[in-house]
Amino acid sequence: MKLYAVIMAGGLGTRFWPLSRQTVPKQTLALFSEKTLIQETVDRVHTFIPREQIIIITNQFQIALLRSQLPVLPSENFIVEPYAKNTAPAIALGCLQVVSKNTDAVIVVLPADHLITGAFEKTITAAAQFAYTHESIVTVGVVPSRPETGYGYIYADRVEENFFKVKSFKEKPTLETAKKYLQEGNHYWNAGIFVFRPEVMIAEFKKFLPKMFSLFQEYVDSNAAHLTTLYSVIDAISIDYGIMEKSSLVYMTPAEFSWNDVGSWEEVALLNKKDAYSQFDGLFIDSTNCYVNAKKFVAVVGCSNLIIVDTPDALLVCEQSHAQDVKKVVEKIKGTHKELL
Amino acid sequence: MKLYAVIMAGGLGTRFWPLSRQTVPKQTLALFSEKTLIQETVDRVHTFIPREQIIIITNQFQIALLRSQLPVLPSENFIVEPYAKNTAPAIALGCLQVVSKNTDAVIVVLPADHLITGAFEKTITAAAQFAYTHESIVTVGVVPSRPETGYGYIYADRVEENFFKVKSFKEKPTLETAKKYLQEGNHYWNAGIFVFRPEVMIAEFKKFLPKMFSLFQEYVDSNAAHLTTLYSVIDAISIDYGIMEKSSLVYMTPAEFSWNDVGSWEEVALLNKKDAYSQFDGLFIDSTNCYVNAKKFVAVVGCSNLIIVDTPDALLVCEQSHAQDVKKVVEKIKGTHKELL
Repeated sequence: MKLYAVIMAGGLGTRFWPLSRQTVPKQTLALFSEKTLIQETVDRVHTFIPREQIIIITNQFQIALLRSQLPVLPSENFIVEPYAKNTAPAIALGCLQVVSKNTDAVIVVLPADHLITGAFEKTITAAAQFAYTHESIVTVGVVPSRPETGYGYIYADRVEENFFKVKSFKEKPTLETAKKYLQEGNHYWNAGIFVFRPEVMIAEFKKFLPKMFSLFQEYVDSNAAHLTTLYSVIDAISIDYGIMEKSSLVYMTPAEFSWNDVGSWEEVALLNKKDAYSQFDGLFIDSTNCYVNAKKFVAVVGCSNLIIVDTPDALLVCEQSHAQDVKKVVEKIKGTHKELL
Repeated sequence: MKLYAVIMAGGLGTRFWPLSRQTVPKQTLALFSEKTLIQETVDRVHTFIPREQIIIITNQFQIALLRSQLPVLPSENFIVEPYAKNTAPAIALGCLQVVSKNTDAVIVVLPADHLITGAFEKTITAAAQFAYTHESIVTVGVVPSRPETGYGYIYADRVEENFFKVKSFKEKPTLETAKKYLQEGNHYWNAGIFVFRPEVMIAEFKKFLPKMFSLFQEYVDSNAAHLTTLYSVIDAISIDYGIMEKSSLVYMTPAEFSWNDVGSWEEVALLNKKDAYSQFDGLFIDSTNCYVNAKKFVAVVGCSNLIIVDTPDALLVCEQSHAQDVKKVVEKIKGTHKELL
C-alpha cells in the first residue's frame, strides 16, 4: 500500500482580504509562522508521505504562486482545474491521477489551509490502514469543544476502538442544535479530511454520480480531449453532497490532533493571541485584544478588539465580531475596485 | 500705515503623527481642503496684505517645504530661526525685520495652522487701525461656545464698541473654571493673534525683556554677528508670559470669524464631519463616526469613533477620545524609530 496526499488548494479566501487576493489566496498566506498554510500542510504530510506522492489540485490564478512556495514538489504533481466545480470533480481528478500511477494506493484528501498541531501522522496512517483493509471511506472527526455553529458535523456510532460508522452528515447547525449535539455526544466536527482507496471512491462515483463519472471516463479514454471541455459540461457539486452523504462505506476516526479551519480574521486573532506570533513592528497604547498584520510600523491607541490588516494598496480595520463581513467588502468592491480583488 | 503679517510657522505638530513629521509639520498638511494650513493662512492674509509684507518665521527643518508650498512669497520673507526659543524671540525678529523696511508699519502676528472662516479681514484691519491710533497691542479673542479646557482665556472689559481692555490672561482652566468663565462672560479664547506697531512692541521688549532685547540690539548693530550665536544665548520664553501678561497696553477685539486651533486628530475628525471633506477612497460597513486619512483604499467594518491615518511607513489607529495620546506615540518611538519622526 502506497499513501498519496491530494491537497485541495483552490479556495478563494475572500474572508482574508486585503491580504488574500484572487492570485494570493488564504493557503498562500503566512498567518501563524514564517511558513504559509500550504507549506505547513505539505510539511505535515511530507514527514510520512514521499514528495512524489503529494498532489496539489488548484486553478490557473494560483498555480504560479503555489509552485514557487512548494519547490519540493515535482511540477507534474500540480493539477490545474480550468473552472471551479466544487470538490467532487477535484477528487475525481485526484483519483484518476493516482490510479494511473499505482494500483495499490490509498489517498488522503486534505484542505490546504487549516491549522493542525498534534498526532496528525498517527491519525492519518491508522485511517489509511482501516480504509485499505475495510474498502471504506474514512473521514476525520474533531471532538467538539464548544457549540460551534460555523462547522458541519458528523453523526457517528463507534464500531471499534478508534473507528465509527457514519450515520449522517449535518450542515452548520443553529446554536440550539449545536448545544444539543455537544450534550448528546456522537457528533464530531467535519475536518474535511477523507481517506480511501481510489478504486473504492471511483466505484462510489459510478454509483452516485454516474453522469459525471462517465464524462471523466470519456476524457481519460480519449487522447485528444481537453480538461477545459470536460469542465465546461460537468456539474459543480461537493464530495459531501454528491457521495459522502449517500455512501454506505463511510466511517469516521477521531482526530488525535488539534484542528482549526481558520475561517476568518477573528480566528487568526484568537489563535495568534495564544501563540504570540507577531508579524508587525508597532506600539499599543491603552489598547487590548487587537490583532495587527502589517509590514510597516503601526500604532494602536485606545482601541479594543480590532483586526488591522495593512497591505500596500488596501487597509482593513475591522471589529473582531464583524470578521465575517470582510466577505461583504470583497463583494462590494467587485464593481468598483477590480485591482484590489 | 502699512500692514505686515508675521506668520509663526515653527510648530512641531507631533499630535498629527504619522502624517506630521519633523520635516512635514502640521501647517504643511492639507487637512480640510486641497490646500495646506499654511497655504490657507497666507491666502487669508493675502486678500488684504501684499505678498512683500507677508513674513514667515520658521526653522531649518521646515524651510524647504514651506518655500515650495508658498511660491507666491519673496524668498527673503522667510526667516529661519536656528533654534526653537518659543514665541518672544520670533516676534522680536519679526519686529526688527519690519522696522528695517518701514517706519509706519503695523504687524499682525498669526499662527500658521489654525482653521479660520468668516470676516477675518474686517477683524484684523479694525484691530490694526486701533493698535495704530492707540499705540497699543491688540489681541483677538474668540467668544466661547463651550467650557473648553484646551485653550487659554483672555479676561477683558469693554472700553468701546469692539475693543476691550485686557485685565489678565488665564492658562488652560479646569472644567469647573471653564464653566464659570462661560457663565460670567468677559472671558474669551486666546486665538494667538496679536496686532501692534513694531515700535510699540520693541518698547515693551525693552521694558519687560531688557536682557533679551539688548542681545537682539547687539546682533542688529553688528554686521558680522550670526543669528545662531544670538539664539544660543537667549532664553526661550513665550510672548504671552514675557510681555502680554505684563504690559498695560494690551487690548482685545472679538473675532468676527469662526476659529479652531486644530489641536488634535479629534478636532480634524469633528470638523471634517461637518465639512464632508473626504480625503480617501474606501468603504464603511456597519461603522459610525470614523475619520480616515489615507492615500489608498480603506475598508472600515463594524467600528465606531476611530481615527485612521495611513502613510507609506506608518499607520495610526486611534480611538477619538485618545487623540491627545498620539504625542505619547511620538515620545515612545524617539529612541527606537527615528526614521518615523
